[in-house]
Amino acid sequence: MQVLKNQTTEAGLCHVSGVNANGIHAGFKFMDKDLALLYIPNGATVAGVFTRNQVKAHSVIHDMKLLKQHSNFKAVLINSGNANACNGPQGLKDLQAMVCEIQKHLNIEAHEILVSSTGIIGEPLDLNGFYQSSQQLVDGLSSKDSQHAAEAIMTTDTKAKTLSRTVKIGDSYVHFGAMIKGAGMIHPNMGTMLAYITTDADLSQHELKTALTYATDHSFNTMTVDGDTSTNDTALLLSTNKVPIHATDHSDFTHQLTYLCQDLAKMVADDAEGSTKFVTVKVSNAYSDEDAVIAAKAVATSSLVKTALYGEDANWGRIITALGNSKAVINQDLVSIAFSSDKGNITVCQHGMASSFDESVASEVLAERDLSIFIDLNIGSSSGQVWTCDMSIDYIKINADYRS
Amino acid sequence: MQVLKNQTTEAGLCHVSGVNANGIHAGFKFMDKDLALLYIPNGATVAGVFTRNQVKAHSVIHDMKLLKQHSNFKAVLINSGNANACNGPQGLKDLQAMVCEIQKHLNIEAHEILVSSTGIIGEPLDLNGFYQSSQQLVDGLSSKDSQHAAEAIMTTDTKAKTLSRTVKIGDSYVHFGAMIKGAGMIHPNMGTMLAYITTDADLSQHELKTALTYATDHSFNTMTVDGDTSTNDTALLLSTNKVPIHATDHSDFTHQLTYLCQDLAKMVADDAEGSTKFVTVKVSNAYSDEDAVIAAKAVATSSLVKTALYGEDANWGRIITALGNSKAVINQDLVSIAFSSDKGNITVCQHGMASSFDESVASEVLAERDLSIFIDLNIGSSSGQVWTCDMSIDYIKINADYRS
Repeated sequence: MQVLKNQTTEAGLCHVSGVNANGIHAGFKFMDKDLALLYIPNGATVAGVFTRNQVKAHSVIHDMKLLKQHSNFKAVLINSGNANACNGPQGLKDLQAMVCEIQKHLNIEAHEILVSSTGIIGEPLDLNGFYQSSQQLVDGLSSKDSQHAAEAIMTTDTKAKTLSRTVKIGDSYVHFGAMIKGAGMIHPNMGTMLAYITTDADLSQHELKTALTYATDHSFNTMTVDGDTSTNDTALLLSTNKVPIHATDHSDFTHQLTYLCQDLAKMVADDAEGSTKFVTVKVSNAYSDEDAVIAAKAVATSSLVKTALYGEDANWGRIITALGNSKAVINQDLVSIAFSSDKGNITVCQHGMASSFDESVASEVLAERDLSIFIDLNIGSSSGQVWTCDMSIDYIKINADYRS
Repeated sequence: MQVLKNQTTEAGLCHVSGVNANGIHAGFKFMDKDLALLYIPNGATVAGVFTRNQVKAHSVIHDMKLLKQHSNFKAVLINSGNANACNGPQGLKDLQAMVCEIQKHLNIEAHEILVSSTGIIGEPLDLNGFYQSSQQLVDGLSSKDSQHAAEAIMTTDTKAKTLSRTVKIGDSYVHFGAMIKGAGMIHPNMGTMLAYITTDADLSQHELKTALTYATDHSFNTMTVDGDTSTNDTALLLSTNKVPIHATDHSDFTHQLTYLCQDLAKMVADDAEGSTKFVTVKVSNAYSDEDAVIAAKAVATSSLVKTALYGEDANWGRIITALGNSKAVINQDLVSIAFSSDKGNITVCQHGMASSFDESVASEVLAERDLSIFIDLNIGSSSGQVWTCDMSIDYIKINADYRS
């Protein structure tokens, strides 16, 4: 895999030529930026994947419907601070009013505008600030800098997250730009994840959708438990279709996109609410591929494991208990567990029993921010991995009074 | 249902005549009581239910095996501080050594002794203190007081939990005694639950097992997610068979036992690790009985809901999101949600939208320790409920350094 340029600079989404972006404060939050606009005057082919939650925000219902009817779009409007979810008929009216306003400013069709929202559920939007600032939002569009947009989609994120890179696919140089938010997305927190990826690879909506679905399943979805998503989760892939891609190179595009999404996912996990650790749970020698992921997720979502990681405690008893509670096939006498970081590796459990280890080395290994847990089930030949974070006192503090 | 006497006095298990109990410090913990013995010289018919975890402690494997071969037992030995789980062949040897010692002191058969353990996983038992104190354990047996035993099975529990009552079943006066531990059993914490219930109702092992299984499913199991149990979870029902029960009164016995187990479960939930709230999640008008419980559990196990309860935040958005993530059939436009406590009731969501409510009343309602969340799915006619607790900063503190 050949990555020619890889940047986390302000270019972000605008690394793809023809993409404009801006972000401003429009009154959805008390004072921070809370309204972003992406504008592609020549249009983009767009594919999207959305939350699997049965309860869906108005923006998600709106986008899913539009994407079934159309493949080409010119703008994406995103607000943070208010999820516009569970707001009944008024929620849809407010969304349409926002689209109408942007449509007039950009002189495009309503069906060319996609919408995302993130924030508080069940509080009607207050659009006064939006009406006052929408002209400013459009006037400030930049073809070089998506940093303001990336800031405007943040909720409990501690930093804006953008990425841009150029890759060679076949004989073509393909550009990618991206921004993502989702500090609170790490299970068991179901905070919203919003991801926007621009590219110039000339692919159809169907081809983009296939690639995005694969990439999502192998990145964002390995951070959350299947189906455990917020009302607003959205990932959009927008292509300006400028760079031809040979049919035989589609799978390479999918892999490049997956690689990009994995990097974005890591940025999210690394900025998870109140986390102090970025943890990779790797399961090997599972009975099946499905079992490997089930087992890894059981460990990655255990509050007991996550609090022990916060406490930097080599508590493998909680790990094997979580494995035993999963639906994965386990033979307790075959399980081995190790911790790994830049400070070294320690095997803490072998054949289902304690393995003697130096507690001081364990302390050093577990004190690192980047940690891996290696679990060998010794019952098959499949492997899988999941990313997670620890559960800290700050996690409770942040989530105990998020609404107020 | 007629309860003649209902006590949480020191009698506990000994409320049933013929039951002796004691609890001492035997070196499994640093200094607290950590070894309990129940002794029924004339023997008891015993039934047990155990953890569904694929990883099982040596005591659980031992008891399950014995209970398949025998119905009559004379003693139960319980240690806290060490789970004797994942200790390989040595774990079984140590268990057998303990049984051998107690057998000699009491002059009974090895197969008449059941064993339970709770505590750290994967650390071999140190039996030095046990050997030094086993005679003292036997010598101190009391026919009137199980308080020491109840103290000796505690781990992170803040208080010993016993119960005793006399009920009339048909024409018979039936006695029940009980002790339970399990502060950490509330999902997502998988700390061990140990429950011991004595009775004099003359029932066969099969009849006791049927009653205990029903009672467990309608009490302890509504606090935890199915299958999400520790390596050591054990509930034993021991009968001295002194009081005849007419065949037509078996179902009444089951209901009395269920009622007792529900009271025990509430004592556990009320003493959950670091909890500040005891919360009942009630779901009504679900599509099916199964759906009602699935929906209630989705809410009761959501860390986001549990942290909001700790923050006394009427955040119904997290509740409806948890419902939407469950496998229960939900129509978001039909859902209503209310909070209730001794300070009043507030409906916070109606027809999937915010219901206007007085925030100051909400604050008063949510400030209470005993809270209910009422969820009306409006999609069927089934109902169900689950108990849970909030998730506090202390939860993290307790679990971050439990092992050390």
